[in-house]
Amino acid sequence: MEQQILYYMGVSILALAYAAFLAVKVGKIKVDDKKTLEISDAIREGAMAFLNREYQYIFAYMVVMSLILAAALKPEAVVGVSFLIGGTLSILAGNIGMRMSTKANVRAVHAVKESMNAGLQVAFSSGLVMGLAVVGLGVLGVSVVYLMFFDVNNATLTNNVIFGFGFGASSVALFARVGGGIYTKGADVGADLVGKVEAGIPEDDPRNPAVIADLVGDNVGDIAGMGADLYESYVESIIAAMALGVIFISTSNAAVMLPLAVAAVGILAAIVGGFFVKTSGANVEKALNNGIIATAGIIAVASYFITLFMLGPEYMGVYWSILSGILAGVIVGYVTEYYTSADHKPTREIAAAAQEGAGTVIISGLSVGMMSTVIPVLVVCCSIIISFKMAGIYGIAIAAVGMLSTLGITLAADCYGPVADNAAGIAEMGGMGKEVRERAEKLDSVGNTTAAMGKGFAIASAALTALALFAAYQATSGLQIINLMDSYVVVGLFLGGLMPFMFCAMTMKAVGRAAEMMVDEVRRQFREIVGLMEGTAKADYRRCVDISTKAAIHAMVVPSILAVIAPLAVGFILGKAALGGLLAGNVVTGFVIAVMMANSGGAWDNAKKYIEEGNFGGKGSAAHKAAVVGDTVGDPFKDTSGPSLNILIKIVSIVAVLFAPLFPL
Amino acid sequence: MEQQILYYMGVSILALAYAAFLAVKVGKIKVDDKKTLEISDAIREGAMAFLNREYQYIFAYMVVMSLILAAALKPEAVVGVSFLIGGTLSILAGNIGMRMSTKANVRAVHAVKESMNAGLQVAFSSGLVMGLAVVGLGVLGVSVVYLMFFDVNNATLTNNVIFGFGFGASSVALFARVGGGIYTKGADVGADLVGKVEAGIPEDDPRNPAVIADLVGDNVGDIAGMGADLYESYVESIIAAMALGVIFISTSNAAVMLPLAVAAVGILAAIVGGFFVKTSGANVEKALNNGIIATAGIIAVASYFITLFMLGPEYMGVYWSILSGILAGVIVGYVTEYYTSADHKPTREIAAAAQEGAGTVIISGLSVGMMSTVIPVLVVCCSIIISFKMAGIYGIAIAAVGMLSTLGITLAADCYGPVADNAAGIAEMGGMGKEVRERAEKLDSVGNTTAAMGKGFAIASAALTALALFAAYQATSGLQIINLMDSYVVVGLFLGGLMPFMFCAMTMKAVGRAAEMMVDEVRRQFREIVGLMEGTAKADYRRCVDISTKAAIHAMVVPSILAVIAPLAVGFILGKAALGGLLAGNVVTGFVIAVMMANSGGAWDNAKKYIEEGNFGGKGSAAHKAAVVGDTVGDPFKDTSGPSLNILIKIVSIVAVLFAPLFPL
Repeated sequence: MEQQILYYMGVSILALAYAAFLAVKVGKIKVDDKKTLEISDAIREGAMAFLNREYQYIFAYMVVMSLILAAALKPEAVVGVSFLIGGTLSILAGNIGMRMSTKANVRAVHAVKESMNAGLQVAFSSGLVMGLAVVGLGVLGVSVVYLMFFDVNNATLTNNVIFGFGFGASSVALFARVGGGIYTKGADVGADLVGKVEAGIPEDDPRNPAVIADLVGDNVGDIAGMGADLYESYVESIIAAMALGVIFISTSNAAVMLPLAVAAVGILAAIVGGFFVKTSGANVEKALNNGIIATAGIIAVASYFITLFMLGPEYMGVYWSILSGILAGVIVGYVTEYYTSADHKPTREIAAAAQEGAGTVIISGLSVGMMSTVIPVLVVCCSIIISFKMAGIYGIAIAAVGMLSTLGITLAADCYGPVADNAAGIAEMGGMGKEVRERAEKLDSVGNTTAAMGKGFAIASAALTALALFAAYQATSGLQIINLMDSYVVVGLFLGGLMPFMFCAMTMKAVGRAAEMMVDEVRRQFREIVGLMEGTAKADYRRCVDISTKAAIHAMVVPSILAVIAPLAVGFILGKAALGGLLAGNVVTGFVIAVMMANSGGAWDNAKKYIEEGNFGGKGSAAHKAAVVGDTVGDPFKDTSGPSLNILIKIVSIVAVLFAPLFPL
Repeated sequence: MEQQILYYMGVSILALAYAAFLAVKVGKIKVDDKKTLEISDAIREGAMAFLNREYQYIFAYMVVMSLILAAALKPEAVVGVSFLIGGTLSILAGNIGMRMSTKANVRAVHAVKESMNAGLQVAFSSGLVMGLAVVGLGVLGVSVVYLMFFDVNNATLTNNVIFGFGFGASSVALFARVGGGIYTKGADVGADLVGKVEAGIPEDDPRNPAVIADLVGDNVGDIAGMGADLYESYVESIIAAMALGVIFISTSNAAVMLPLAVAAVGILAAIVGGFFVKTSGANVEKALNNGIIATAGIIAVASYFITLFMLGPEYMGVYWSILSGILAGVIVGYVTEYYTSADHKPTREIAAAAQEGAGTVIISGLSVGMMSTVIPVLVVCCSIIISFKMAGIYGIAIAAVGMLSTLGITLAADCYGPVADNAAGIAEMGGMGKEVRERAEKLDSVGNTTAAMGKGFAIASAALTALALFAAYQATSGLQIINLMDSYVVVGLFLGGLMPFMFCAMTMKAVGRAAEMMVDEVRRQFREIVGLMEGTAKADYRRCVDISTKAAIHAMVVPSILAVIAPLAVGFILGKAALGGLLAGNVVTGFVIAVMMANSGGAWDNAKKYIEEGNFGGKGSAAHKAAVVGDTVGDPFKDTSGPSLNILIKIVSIVAVLFAPLFPL
């Protein structure tokens, strides 16, 4: 047992304390406008209702799964406990984030009255609360589990409990991403199809019965879903590196502790970086970028000395692995921005294609999305080669830790998005003055860029984490080789490559079905509630929230079970090597499709906005109608199916790692 | 040298003679209607103009490449010659098919006056000419190259010349599929966007300037492209099995000769099976199916005895490999039919989704396409496991030969499609009577089903062929293992998985651009040619044909070069093992995406037709407009990007096999 682990726990507690301080500070902002408070309350109520319903399923699943784990890995039955801890902490992080974001949205509206910077501070601080909660609970959880169950004489036990912890985080992430993704886009597409297209009322119009469900969806998907996704990547990259550290340097515990040290430095850097996020004028985007770059810079420098100090000069290759991870994260973020922002050629080409009709918008958007996978794949490949050359499979895992070490602040920038989006919606619905609405809109539009970059970061980190887990699988499975000349491995590769397609098919279909149900309900309310369109009667928001909740909960079950059953089935039937093939096929295909879907979706969204700004005929033109079709397709791409793949590639890997000892050779 | 090879050559010459007999028979049908003859002449002229232009590029490429090959593989410089033979025979097969189909279309119109069966006979016979030309020239070519260059003391030479022959076929297929695919869909989408959508005139209306280009495109894509694609699969599966046969049974040449024997039996079976294709009533589909099933049945029985006779009872595992290949081909065909025919649930669901708008049509179609990959992947996996268990990597190659042994007749059913399609177009444009037009339409609609099944067969056979070549690569590279624990192999896997996405992005973009150019030209003609819409002036068809030709030729160059350069670059820079990873990643991702694209495209097409039959509002309804968007997206999916992947996965493999000795370990 290591004394130094107490330091890392101390840092994580500092993070949580600072998050609490920020939360209180944001909470203190007084809101006296009754109407906006009401809207914000309705959003929080809807969001919490969804979460609570989702938790029932998750808890039932977790209880069953912890028993299965305890029974299956019998001598180390305690893995069931660490599984529960991992899941519970992830839920806690998501819950903190949701409470914060649904509180901050209305406060950002009121702060923005004062200045852009004040609004930015509220939205960003609430994001930082989420970011710090995730990294704080991440490091704390890993440390506690390590302290509680570490046994120097039983490496299997230690491995099992820490991977069990990761599997808990995976399970929550799976439900949060899939369920949240279906919720948010079912509500969004449903609201748009009837509201904007049929009834011709604007976005966020209070007469639209689905408007609250739509705003809830932003929180459910982009806060709870994104948070659980990255919490999973964060803890799993750390534990994979810790597990491989035992092999990398067997004479001391230094390589095992280094991932926690890097993570701890990342936490401190994020807190410092947060102070760089301020603007005197209106350049919100630059302010957020400053924060991220400052944080990444601090980590890049500090981890050099940490590596030198902990591992000694002969192991400095590990540092270059870390650095390759940090750089890969930053580069993928910028590539995402290039392909999805209307400031650059690809998105403008999609907008131009809208003049020929909806068909060409789709073809052009898919083509852009496919092309946008090239650089991220090359970047990840470079990172693999560098980190493996420098420090073997430990290098790959520590590169993932390096990339995710900036998470405190990148997640803050990410969660800023939905808060700003909600703020703009509340300003619109609450009938605030023109200037306030415009400022809120401006905050929101920056949120779209940070959201796109955040998605790129989330996917790249999921891929590196999955590769780190693949490396861990090589160690825990006891395989000497996974030979592509073995037909079982090739079959595993095919099955792994197939999984993302099945998964996407199911989640896209679920969004379609949820949207249909929403369309029927919104049409019914327009038809049956007298005075709704005239603004004299109120829509039944709660009913729409209910529909989205049920549809999402219902549809998340089958794909989630598939993700856990498939690797078990292949492992038991075709053996360990075939399962290795499955992991590899799954991460390759899943990563490329996830990037494609996220970027196609983001580009369609912004192409539509570019036309709305007056290009190619502007709002209401034929080109605009065509672009709306692109956006509708892009919604489940970028917010449901694409992000769900992040979880798929990780959870399949962690299931494999955990159950590896049970499979035949 | 083997005496028996002369028998196989005899069978191939028989096939060519029978094809010539059928061609003369179809040619003898007299057409006295001047107007339809004119149309048919215009189609032939356009098709030949395209082919001739394409050949210039292909010949230039082939001369350069044969010199490179001769220089690179110096001691076996003769590989340059076998490369030229392979390419030339593929061109010859394509040319025969095109001449036949453009002659048969108008004759089918006139035959259908008499009866459905007479029309069927003409269209099917012309398809059989193509089918037999491909298999005849395939077996003949392999035999001749083998006879000319076989050297019992130099296995490397023998291998190189037969794989060089395959590479020649690959190169032609690449240009034919990519160029033909871009041509056909650029013309189709362009013709539809202005003609149907803007001007509101029906399909195949002679007033549409792009109508001839569109009809030419059917031949260029579905005859020349499809033929070259399957010619490649056919010869490459045979030569891969022959090369692996040396290793499988080293004491005799029996395993080397078996692939040719199975292919020869397949040729005879196809000739016999052809006689089963007749109908007394109107059930054309059943007639075609009878022919295919009779052929497959004959081969399944005959190859049992051939294997027994040639290899002896201890090697009967080889027979089960062959059978698994035959069955896999049939099953994938039927799965394709299920997912793309409006008789079944998936396509009807897409049609139903059209009621909600174009966005949901796209989401639903993509979801169906993704889901449709599951069974084909599982079937191919089963075939891999069975054939590998039964006869090692030789088993995988011989399974591919088994699947492709039915090619004579499956390709006939396939090429029947565009001939029937052209016949329907000519009947419409030539103003034939209602009954004739209806019968021609009926022939055409069956063609859509056979085309879908044919596409499934082409993809599955490409995948098995690529796997056979992957097996050959394992042998020629001298690698002992391709270890997924090696970071270079993982990087290769990523790059291989990426290639299909890049390739699709480029080809889809090319279709978009070609369509745009066509749109501009058609709009110009409508605007500038006085009396065109009234039918008093003639459209300038030739100009449209020219535009498609130029756009296709221009756009096929970059993706084609990429497909050859990428494996060379990875082989030289990252080494043999990484290249093995690339091959595996490429075949997995390429296969799954190709199936998805073909089936999404087919399902969208038929969902549109289902609505046109009067469902969900029928022609002109909002649902119909939404379904047209799906069809527009589906066009490049199913006829350009999807089929091009068939070639990509094969050509990358054959380049790897050929150049393997040059790469570092």
